[in-house]
Amino acid sequence: PEVVEVGEGGGMLTRQLGRALAAGRGPAARGLATASCAGGESVTIRNDSSELANLSAHFLRAECYCPECRHGATNQRLVDIAASAGVTAHSAAIAEDGSLKVAFSDGHASTFAPRWLELHSRSSEPDGSRLRRISSLAECLEAQGGPALPESQRPLPLDAPPRAPWAAIEEGGSQLAGVLRNFRRHGAVVLEGAATGDDVIERLAQALGGERATHYGARFHVLSKQQPDSLANTGHALGYHTDLPYRAEVPSVQALHCQQSDAEGGLSLLTDGFAAAEQLYKDDPMAFAELACTPLSFCWQGREGVLLRAQRPVIELCQNLTLRAVNFDNRNVRLRLLPESLGGVAGKSLLEAYSALGARIDAPEKTLKFRLEPGEVMMFHNRRLLHGRTAFDASSGARKLHGCYLDMDMIESTERALELQAEGAMTRFDAPDFARGSFWDA
Amino acid sequence: PEVVEVGEGGGMLTRQLGRALAAGRGPAARGLATASCAGGESVTIRNDSSELANLSAHFLRAECYCPECRHGATNQRLVDIAASAGVTAHSAAIAEDGSLKVAFSDGHASTFAPRWLELHSRSSEPDGSRLRRISSLAECLEAQGGPALPESQRPLPLDAPPRAPWAAIEEGGSQLAGVLRNFRRHGAVVLEGAATGDDVIERLAQALGGERATHYGARFHVLSKQQPDSLANTGHALGYHTDLPYRAEVPSVQALHCQQSDAEGGLSLLTDGFAAAEQLYKDDPMAFAELACTPLSFCWQGREGVLLRAQRPVIELCQNLTLRAVNFDNRNVRLRLLPESLGGVAGKSLLEAYSALGARIDAPEKTLKFRLEPGEVMMFHNRRLLHGRTAFDASSGARKLHGCYLDMDMIESTERALELQAEGAMTRFDAPDFARGSFWDA
Repeated sequence: PEVVEVGEGGGMLTRQLGRALAAGRGPAARGLATASCAGGESVTIRNDSSELANLSAHFLRAECYCPECRHGATNQRLVDIAASAGVTAHSAAIAEDGSLKVAFSDGHASTFAPRWLELHSRSSEPDGSRLRRISSLAECLEAQGGPALPESQRPLPLDAPPRAPWAAIEEGGSQLAGVLRNFRRHGAVVLEGAATGDDVIERLAQALGGERATHYGARFHVLSKQQPDSLANTGHALGYHTDLPYRAEVPSVQALHCQQSDAEGGLSLLTDGFAAAEQLYKDDPMAFAELACTPLSFCWQGREGVLLRAQRPVIELCQNLTLRAVNFDNRNVRLRLLPESLGGVAGKSLLEAYSALGARIDAPEKTLKFRLEPGEVMMFHNRRLLHGRTAFDASSGARKLHGCYLDMDMIESTERALELQAEGAMTRFDAPDFARGSFWDA
Repeated sequence: PEVVEVGEGGGMLTRQLGRALAAGRGPAARGLATASCAGGESVTIRNDSSELANLSAHFLRAECYCPECRHGATNQRLVDIAASAGVTAHSAAIAEDGSLKVAFSDGHASTFAPRWLELHSRSSEPDGSRLRRISSLAECLEAQGGPALPESQRPLPLDAPPRAPWAAIEEGGSQLAGVLRNFRRHGAVVLEGAATGDDVIERLAQALGGERATHYGARFHVLSKQQPDSLANTGHALGYHTDLPYRAEVPSVQALHCQQSDAEGGLSLLTDGFAAAEQLYKDDPMAFAELACTPLSFCWQGREGVLLRAQRPVIELCQNLTLRAVNFDNRNVRLRLLPESLGGVAGKSLLEAYSALGARIDAPEKTLKFRLEPGEVMMFHNRRLLHGRTAFDASSGARKLHGCYLDMDMIESTERALELQAEGAMTRFDAPDFARGSFWDA
């Protein structure tokens, strides 16, 4: 069998390993390497003389790509990364074709092709500068007492969503300014008393600065489809997530208008991602810093001819260490098996940090759950809040939402203009008026 | 006269000073405080017993808001911040109404209302955490040998813009993939041989993932207007700038289609902002770090009912210290008079860093200057490249551009899809195929 060369560092998954396993297909593969999982936390691959790789069981479980763990038509992940945090490996072996077979404590069995092992070892050089940035950020955060929240932010109420009359959209003026101010503060609002036609979302966008068009178009429907381009268009439950983190510019606001709601299930879920991130900082500041310093890839390939990918950290901070966004998307995130770690198995600390944030996001006592009724429009800040829904049974009745994305800065602009108009002031620049410097000088 | 209270720190412009000057309107103001400018680098305001404020002459010159220094209809800045770096104060005095009057070495005379002085002293608490972040970033940058460039980046050619036939847009396939690959690398392309109708830009957007609509609409015209909403729609020269840095999400790509070009002047200018930032890092790493750590406000109020504002640093880095954007907009940036500085007069180091970057952006040997002819479409990366134009005389003939913004990630998606199609491969996710992991695993 081919000699597998590994650097002195050892213990890392190396590209050579995958290549060697692939090259050794057939009976020879058995002799090339063996896999074991003593303790269960990781899977070790070794040849006669040395350890070739040591892979976290959690990473392997979360990256399983069998049809049960990935949605076939969209390749979106079905297995929950954070919920798999405690999963261990019960057995591990290298098969005749060179693939790695693992049985997990949750009863699942996975097969990883040799080529997969090769592809997942791309960044096998430990990245010392990432660790330096993490500790450097942790120090800066500690010095200023933790991450700051946007100044205007108020908590998301958890007993019931903030509500406002749809009529405010039609009437404008200081009433609408008040609705938008509350929306900016709390991150969500349910507008009630709208009709159920397609013009409702059009009218909303018109009042708030226009749609932010995406690859889904200016407006879109969410309903169970025969050929889904996303899990959103099935009856699946959707865990808490950010929409479109695989876009270079993530839409800041989403509006969803309920047109029909006859199916069993399909309740709307909202939670405050910034609150979860703050909690993580209090409980484990290094985990927070690692998530804020480590870009992950988010990918989408749900439609012929569109292949989107973006890199961003799960926790995104402004330069002054104010929270800018939480990017959480179990379906489309690609995990990284980093060779370096804040301790222990390769990349383990990143996965643990990710799961720790996930556990705080999923905390049942932080969940806002409600049924969106026909004629109601739910609007939320897609970079602060995470949203989801419970599963529904499409055979029990129709569930139809009509939606669009909006730009938070255009909504804020609208709020400012309405306030100035209510005071009878100019909203276009006229001349320096330092008696009222609210816009230019705040 | 009212007693002006200043903290022990002294030497800072304080809010109390502005209030006191405003309250002391009339003859009393003279007795309240005096202004002087020994040395010329700064203007000192003092009362009988102590120094109340010490304002950089450069800051005062750049922030002058007289009709000569600001465009009346849009409030956009006309005086060049970077070019004013050497300007000193020749005389300074407090007038009877409490305003500050300064005569500068460039011959200009400015008046600053007491209320202006108050408004510009809002952040009068020195921000120690900003200085900590600057030195922390400088250390991280030094450890990894300076800021990284996006991996695929190649220099912008400076003798002539990269060119490609418009026909590639119509034909698609591997020819278009090649054009887009070069565009991604160099940051700009001129497509030649298009018609001059409004459908050219529509067709371009359709081929490249759709327009990124803004407050200017999905598409817009650039021409000399009677009621301009921006200096772009006058015959003024436009210095190098980023478009729309006052939007929370800055459009990543701009396309400008020349429909008519009969006016004298109006040459197109392009330069590479990343190259300028890299040069600044080599020459003065602390200036680079200060610009990367200090958010500035960018504002736009050019149309009734739209009041846009965003905060971002002039140099924007990714978490792994790769350059993400240079945000340079002399017209719409608001300078900050920071009480703390890397040395010397309050906020002086930030202004010096800004001007140092500006000088590298304006370097004549780094300029790509050309005439865009009718039927040509110029497309450039708005977050890396800076663009501008020479002045033109609208009375000498018409100059008419038709434009739109596009999303770089949709253009990259198009490039990937065309490449896969050219190879006869699926562009929608089908099944794990690790033999070709180019998209999912790169």
